[in-house]
Amino acid sequence: MIQAKGYAAQSPQTDLAPWDFERKDVGPHDVLIEIAFCGVCHSDLHQIKNDWFPGIFPMIPGHEIVGRITQIGAHVKKFKTGDLGGVGVMVDSCRSCENCNNGQEQMCLVSPVQTYNSLDHDGKPTYGGYSNLIVVNEDFVHHISEKLNLAAVAPLLCAGITTYSPLRNWKVGKGHKLAVVGLGGLGHMGVKFGLAFGAEVTVLSTSESKREAAKAIGAHHFVVTTNAEQVAAVKGTFDFILDTVSAKHDLNLYLSLLKTNGVHICVGAPAEPYELPAFALLAGNKVVAGSGAGGLPQTQEMLDFCAEHNIVSDIELIDIKDIHTAFDRMVKGDVRYRFVIDMATL
Amino acid sequence: MIQAKGYAAQSPQTDLAPWDFERKDVGPHDVLIEIAFCGVCHSDLHQIKNDWFPGIFPMIPGHEIVGRITQIGAHVKKFKTGDLGGVGVMVDSCRSCENCNNGQEQMCLVSPVQTYNSLDHDGKPTYGGYSNLIVVNEDFVHHISEKLNLAAVAPLLCAGITTYSPLRNWKVGKGHKLAVVGLGGLGHMGVKFGLAFGAEVTVLSTSESKREAAKAIGAHHFVVTTNAEQVAAVKGTFDFILDTVSAKHDLNLYLSLLKTNGVHICVGAPAEPYELPAFALLAGNKVVAGSGAGGLPQTQEMLDFCAEHNIVSDIELIDIKDIHTAFDRMVKGDVRYRFVIDMATL
Repeated sequence: MIQAKGYAAQSPQTDLAPWDFERKDVGPHDVLIEIAFCGVCHSDLHQIKNDWFPGIFPMIPGHEIVGRITQIGAHVKKFKTGDLGGVGVMVDSCRSCENCNNGQEQMCLVSPVQTYNSLDHDGKPTYGGYSNLIVVNEDFVHHISEKLNLAAVAPLLCAGITTYSPLRNWKVGKGHKLAVVGLGGLGHMGVKFGLAFGAEVTVLSTSESKREAAKAIGAHHFVVTTNAEQVAAVKGTFDFILDTVSAKHDLNLYLSLLKTNGVHICVGAPAEPYELPAFALLAGNKVVAGSGAGGLPQTQEMLDFCAEHNIVSDIELIDIKDIHTAFDRMVKGDVRYRFVIDMATL
Repeated sequence: MIQAKGYAAQSPQTDLAPWDFERKDVGPHDVLIEIAFCGVCHSDLHQIKNDWFPGIFPMIPGHEIVGRITQIGAHVKKFKTGDLGGVGVMVDSCRSCENCNNGQEQMCLVSPVQTYNSLDHDGKPTYGGYSNLIVVNEDFVHHISEKLNLAAVAPLLCAGITTYSPLRNWKVGKGHKLAVVGLGGLGHMGVKFGLAFGAEVTVLSTSESKREAAKAIGAHHFVVTTNAEQVAAVKGTFDFILDTVSAKHDLNLYLSLLKTNGVHICVGAPAEPYELPAFALLAGNKVVAGSGAGGLPQTQEMLDFCAEHNIVSDIELIDIKDIHTAFDRMVKGDVRYRFVIDMATL
């Protein structure tokens, strides 16, 4: 075993605090990554607080991991020591079910292994990226370009692929009007990808205060959804809406903004069910689609696309000791747009 | 004006009763159809009772109309006297909006004209097919094959196209597992089209009593959705679910029966909103899609397909004086599968 250190929650009632633990040894197909940066995802907070389901404690969160590979197993082919590597929401899967064969390993039907708060195939808990190192099978590690700001690449591993994947799968691009709801970690990446794919991008927000920020990242238009006049002007105009909001909200309003045959893509996860009126769907052949993360091939495709088009997340780099302040600000939406932990501060 | 007779509701509080009224004259682009048969759609009852929105009274319902063309306007090119003709849910549209140009006239954005309970472009109310004749612009009249049982063709104009359209648009076919929820007027057509397109078809029902009926129309499988064991056996197995149910029901259950990337198509219209849990959508990239009727080109395509594959609705032919008994039985689901009025009894 390899000695490691990180920030763990010992229970849902306790804050994150330094914790020494062990990582598995580097197997023949594994690589060891010295973690340089780890993004802070809202789901990290949900999971250490047991908001969704009972978790596995102690829990080290973090699934937006980048760093340099310092050790490789005997049979590793994809990487050499010194390469950059990235790890997202998963570290293994069955590799043989329909979804794995289809490059949707994030939805493995047999034995998915999440990066943290999950059991590995050896039955032991997985620990995430709020730590100094991680050992992962090479197949679940992505190549990272040396050209980009490494800290700002970290959020691509979750916020990036979660927005890239549905926009690609639904073939959003030139000639399409795309609206993005919620200008946070996910939403700001949705705007960047929408622009890069050639769509005309509008940010929809409940607050006028986001207008300048939306324009600053390149959105063509901005609509305050509490302003009846602004809403009326965009009724029935969007081909796609990318909905990144995790709080309960009115799906009916957004469906009315879609064109006939338009698609409302949900990537946020409100705890309460959406209310979905049948007529809002039927009158206009509207579609409500969910999308969760992305598979291995598409994640690498996204990272390569980002390197080619110079796309990274807008981030605020923090010391790990400030993680609770960051959580508090994240909950209030007070971050542009993703906190990333500088793991040198661990 | 042309003298006509039909069965009308004088108000939402009164039953249908004989009523003499006037149809517009046959204009240069119009045809006159002597109505032979008209199907009885659940929406007929909803509209005469003002269930959805305040209607235009007196109201003659009926939008599954077939009959023989006995008079044509001077410039009519598509039909000659003596041809069969069919009329569905609409009799005109703006013909120039994005949806009309796209062959989705049923979703005309500017001036749609429904077959009844609507205002025509001349500002006068439209009256439906529970009547002896109708005058319609030739563009909104469909060719009907002489090969099929004409009474059993009538329901194709609404129940048929409403199920054909989404199955075609979502490219349901060979290699797909399709489940159909609700074995009524729409559902039984969904089963027939699913089979004709090459899908493996399962009927989902709350009641064991429909098993034999489902098999009789050719469904490969039958699952009682209140039987936990039967439900468990089909979890995550369907590519598509065609949901024809108009009563409030549990969308969460059906989403759990879809494969990853599976599509739940709603063609029924419950008055209360669906409850749609975000995780049920996100975990599996599931899709909930609405679909309403179909446009002119696809309706003709459907009728031609039915003629080629010998597909009609299973019907119970009734005298028009028995319409209220038929409504009562329809509400209870006691019809296999569509009532059709023999207009010779008017």
